[in-house]
Amino acid sequence: MASSNLQKIQGDFKNKDIVSLSQLDDKSVLKLFEKVSLVRELGEKGLPSDLLAGKIVVLLFYEPSSRTRSSFDAATKQLGGQTIVVENPQQFSSVSKGETFEDTIRVFEAYCDAIVLRHPELGSAERAAKTAKFVPIINAGDGAGEHPTQALLDLYTIWDRKKNLSNLKGVMAGDILNGRTVHSLLEGLSFFPGNEVFLLAPEELKLSKSDFEKVKARVKLHEISSIDQIPKDCDFWYWTRVQKERFKSEELYKRVNNRYIVTKEILNKYAGKVTILMHPLPRVGEILEEVDSDPRAVYLSSQIRSGMYVRMALLAMILGKL
Amino acid sequence: MASSNLQKIQGDFKNKDIVSLSQLDDKSVLKLFEKVSLVRELGEKGLPSDLLAGKIVVLLFYEPSSRTRSSFDAATKQLGGQTIVVENPQQFSSVSKGETFEDTIRVFEAYCDAIVLRHPELGSAERAAKTAKFVPIINAGDGAGEHPTQALLDLYTIWDRKKNLSNLKGVMAGDILNGRTVHSLLEGLSFFPGNEVFLLAPEELKLSKSDFEKVKARVKLHEISSIDQIPKDCDFWYWTRVQKERFKSEELYKRVNNRYIVTKEILNKYAGKVTILMHPLPRVGEILEEVDSDPRAVYLSSQIRSGMYVRMALLAMILGKL
Amino acid sequence: MASSNLQKIQGDFKNKDIVSLSQLDDKSVLKLFEKVSLVRELGEKGLPSDLLAGKIVVLLFYEPSSRTRSSFDAATKQLGGQTIVVENPQQFSSVSKGETFEDTIRVFEAYCDAIVLRHPELGSAERAAKTAKFVPIINAGDGAGEHPTQALLDLYTIWDRKKNLSNLKGVMAGDILNGRTVHSLLEGLSFFPGNEVFLLAPEELKLSKSDFEKVKARVKLHEISSIDQIPKDCDFWYWTRVQKERFKSEELYKRVNNRYIVTKEILNKYAGKVTILMHPLPRVGEILEEVDSDPRAVYLSSQIRSGMYVRMALLAMILGKL
Repeated sequence: MASSNLQKIQGDFKNKDIVSLSQLDDKSVLKLFEKVSLVRELGEKGLPSDLLAGKIVVLLFYEPSSRTRSSFDAATKQLGGQTIVVENPQQFSSVSKGETFEDTIRVFEAYCDAIVLRHPELGSAERAAKTAKFVPIINAGDGAGEHPTQALLDLYTIWDRKKNLSNLKGVMAGDILNGRTVHSLLEGLSFFPGNEVFLLAPEELKLSKSDFEKVKARVKLHEISSIDQIPKDCDFWYWTRVQKERFKSEELYKRVNNRYIVTKEILNKYAGKVTILMHPLPRVGEILEEVDSDPRAVYLSSQIRSGMYVRMALLAMILGKL
Repeated sequence: MASSNLQKIQGDFKNKDIVSLSQLDDKSVLKLFEKVSLVRELGEKGLPSDLLAGKIVVLLFYEPSSRTRSSFDAATKQLGGQTIVVENPQQFSSVSKGETFEDTIRVFEAYCDAIVLRHPELGSAERAAKTAKFVPIINAGDGAGEHPTQALLDLYTIWDRKKNLSNLKGVMAGDILNGRTVHSLLEGLSFFPGNEVFLLAPEELKLSKSDFEKVKARVKLHEISSIDQIPKDCDFWYWTRVQKERFKSEELYKRVNNRYIVTKEILNKYAGKVTILMHPLPRVGEILEEVDSDPRAVYLSSQIRSGMYVRMALLAMILGKL
Repeated sequence: MASSNLQKIQGDFKNKDIVSLSQLDDKSVLKLFEKVSLVRELGEKGLPSDLLAGKIVVLLFYEPSSRTRSSFDAATKQLGGQTIVVENPQQFSSVSKGETFEDTIRVFEAYCDAIVLRHPELGSAERAAKTAKFVPIINAGDGAGEHPTQALLDLYTIWDRKKNLSNLKGVMAGDILNGRTVHSLLEGLSFFPGNEVFLLAPEELKLSKSDFEKVKARVKLHEISSIDQIPKDCDFWYWTRVQKERFKSEELYKRVNNRYIVTKEILNKYAGKVTILMHPLPRVGEILEEVDSDPRAVYLSSQIRSGMYVRMALLAMILGKL
């Protein structure tokens, strides 16, 4: 979890690093989301925007992530900005010659107005933010650490449908123990009062005791172990993949993987009429394709586009243009 | 060959997927070529165009092809558009985590106005076209399948010089059995009446019987086996490389490779004054460098630029701007 | 060193290939630097420029160099131009199928207004310049050959602080025998009268006799072997890394590496108040981080940005826009 040294946003995103969701609060989140809706509206009307005209964003990805990179790439270009993509600098170039991470950050900041950083090591984004003198750093995932724009797009997807982030009832399913997106979404919901979440996980993948204690002060938590325990009136279902790469034992992975599969039948039986079904993607079987065309399924439509719109608004606000 | 389910263009390219040459006909081809000449004229005058301003094209390449990718990249940017390049998503990212091809397409279409797809598997472009809900798919080569913009640029190169695509006489040389570009060009010529083609190939690389039968109804075909059988008054020579990767036996490859080599002497002896010499590139010895400076040799000049202009016009028409 | 067949710039950069520093002279360098200051001034005021609007630059990198590529990428985009990045074409694509370097150059020049080439082989840039018919080639490093924009950015960094390139006194330290940047900077300084350089190197890494003889006619050279021999009133210190990859023997590398390390104490003791401390980067220990915040240390600030500004001005002048 993020260090307390990080700058708080407090409603003003200009020139701020975005390292951790913990920099935000209810007010900052809602301010951002109003701007997201604004850029989205322009986007949906097909109105080209030049909010980022003349701006250059370096996308510095120490591990490739086509999706996150493309989303930031598109976000920048949708607003008339330009990107410089640097993938795997550790394999080539100066980094492989022994250059420090700090020197690399200092070099790239000389070429641009902001750096979007993806790095496999926890804490890298904070190190980068401390190092960069002239441009803001946006964390696009630092290992087991944070991926704040992912959390924000999940929150936005809910907010957009429910017009609210308080007094919601939802379920989160899958690997609740390790799932970074689950932890972040819980943290985001904790900014707002009255939320209640049902955590659906196999025994082996339940939320850790310490995380449970931390969250339950602000979000009402219920641990459940089968789909039929989900209350019918949930506002959202947040389904996740069990990530094979997190398991040392193939056998354990097989035991817990795809314990909970959303089918058409299950959705119709246990979800409400206005429940939305979310997934951070990629999915590998935990939601069947037959569900995709259900209007409640947003994971292949508005949730993805929300990611781009959230990043558009965030970049424009950080670069002082919105 | 393409399925009959594909949308026919019938002169209207707007929002259409371009999966196969078979979607086109004489009318569509000529309509496209008029637009190609238009964008080319602007380009040659150095007039910047903003036909694609505000548009984003994802170049989704499951196998790298610097040339095709760069040609689409340049085509988009020449018209003021932007690209997002995604290469080898199967090695990194969500695809490697088990995501289906369909989910990947759905994700990327959320970020853009069109997807240019290169994929090693036959039929991928059609699958992508069926999957994408919001944006058109342009096939940039799907394995042994099609590469329609390559065929169109070859046709355009001829049309540009001959001002006509009917009643032409040409020769195609090399691997006539397997050559994708040869098959496509034959199909394109079959849209127009009165064409006659001499197929110059070693016995092992002659057109298959079934393909021969299919084409000969519309294009007059002659099989020849040595350069001195080429009639002097051909409108075009279409030379191709024998692709080593298609042969299981090194020995067979050696026997058929470079059977027909164009030298200055051969060109002067067997080609006419206005014959054009084409090659889809890369060449690996089948046309000597001494031929490059001959004004009839177009493979390193107008044929390449035609590729960019054809893709410019096509993108602009599909995106409703031309 | 560059062949005498290369075009001389003689103050006019328009449509010229930039293969070697030897194409320039004092007049050309100063003309360029005036333009560099111009684009820098606009850049620092945050005024977007469209000097390269509608122009496309292919960045053709046969070996990856994130830094140099990004610098050219940023330079082009800062001026409103577009780039097409092609990395490692020899691993994929037509090059791997046996296409000649010359054919590859001919293909890519069809898509763009200029090619920036990085290649591991000495002489590649000159070959490319001879081959390209329509667009200028800019050498971004050809193996043991040249990297003229690196030399120009080093010269500009000095010129910018000293407002002069004559009658300067400096020290160059590290691998003076092999260091490409050292050789180029010496050549650049030799265009101007009255310069004096102290070469600080271990015995094994001293300037070769032939290079020493060639340079000393125009630049006064002194070979020294310890930091305390540096005169206090140097205008610049140019520190370099000993490149491990140049040594066959690990043992020799260990003996010569980091013989000379700049610490805060050393800088304060041996450098003057207005001495600037430069380094081409990456550094791997030969300047301690404690030195970074010293106002005389320019390697992580103005020297990097100078690289981008030099490339901006150069591209704009070559493409006839400045």
